Amino acid sequence: MTARIVDVRQGVLSKNDALAADLRQRFHAAGVTVLNLVSSPGAGKTALLERTLADLLARGRRAAALVGDLATENDARRLARSGAPVRQIVTAGICHLEAEMVATHLAGWDLAALDFLFIENVGNLVCPSGYDLGEDARVVLLSTTEGEDKPLKYPPMFHSAHLALLTKIDLAEAVEFDRAAAYAAIHAVRPGMPILETSARTGQGIDAWLAWLETLAEM
Amino acid sequence: MTARIVDVRQGVLSKNDALAADLRQRFHAAGVTVLNLVSSPGAGKTALLERTLADLLARGRRAAALVGDLATENDARRLARSGAPVRQIVTAGICHLEAEMVATHLAGWDLAALDFLFIENVGNLVCPSGYDLGEDARVVLLSTTEGEDKPLKYPPMFHSAHLALLTKIDLAEAVEFDRAAAYAAIHAVRPGMPILETSARTGQGIDAWLAWLETLAEM
Repeated sequence: MTARIVDVRQGVLSKNDALAADLRQRFHAAGVTVLNLVSSPGAGKTALLERTLADLLARGRRAAALVGDLATENDARRLARSGAPVRQIVTAGICHLEAEMVATHLAGWDLAALDFLFIENVGNLVCPSGYDLGEDARVVLLSTTEGEDKPLKYPPMFHSAHLALLTKIDLAEAVEFDRAAAYAAIHAVRPGMPILETSARTGQGIDAWLAWLETLAEM
Repeated sequence: MTARIVDVRQGVLSKNDALAADLRQRFHAAGVTVLNLVSSPGAGKTALLERTLADLLARGRRAAALVGDLATENDARRLARSGAPVRQIVTAGICHLEAEMVATHLAGWDLAALDFLFIENVGNLVCPSGYDLGEDARVVLLSTTEGEDKPLKYPPMFHSAHLALLTKIDLAEAVEFDRAAAYAAIHAVRPGMPILETSARTGQGIDAWLAWLETLAEM
């Protein structure tokens, strides 16, 4: 039984990889920079995106978002207030987004009219790691309230990311966050990965995050 | 392809259900009360268990724990300091525990010598919901730092639980936790589910949690 599951999973993953490669080609052709945001539930992906979309729009950049959840359209409603185009992907029980879901939900959008497309994955530190969505970069969020050891406990997700954001940094003191331990855990799994400390609430680190995005867009 | 995956998953689940039924029979015969703790990564399952094991042992109760993680034995080491028997289940990439993993890791333990067995599941609000481990009760933790909407976004997990713990309640003010919204979200998914507010750090609510456990053990 286990062998059959592995077979099926391999088949699903190679189908996903092929679709993701198509998406990546479309994104590059359109000149849009695409980010895949992953984290535990409640690490602050939506709060970060709310702020990011508003700030990018205020700077004259064109940004849109696809947001994944098992159920509810709450996040899309919340993000749409920024004025950016936003669509919800309801996965109906599936614990990650797949390239096919992304492709389907892009229908009718003019990608060439966008500078940035953010894909907010399902809150999950396991399932999304194996699914390429055609993104330019994968960004993993780790909130100060979750515990510094999470990278060691969920290595594939942290290993597959290009940038780590330490979110809710304004709560670091209240939760006795051990910054050195968090950095060590991230770098044990992914040596040299850049780390930014952010707070969507206070705005701390948001300029550095926006600068990182602009650098990525220039590459 | 999707149909085949569903078939395979159904097969895995009915095999798991059969094993879980066997486990439940063994647990009942041994007179041990078994809890399955589920939550997001970092909601505080291990911190709660540390305190719970120590407090139960101090009251002359006999308790043990099985702890699941994708990687590392950190949690088992941390919990073993309580003096309780603890074993780590390393799932090697699987995002939930299964009844077979529990059965395997119980080998050599005298269940009749235990009053309580705690099974700390992999930190994940999706995958563990479909896997019965033979437990008497499933306890879902929702930390005040995660956001009040999580039950609505991950309904199967909250729907399948018997008790909800609002953890890190000492941080409620710092994160502007909306207690009424959290209760409403939990009860929208699972009407009438009992909710306890706890802090492993300050000890708030721990007596109520221990009393709930003792009531369950008497049933």
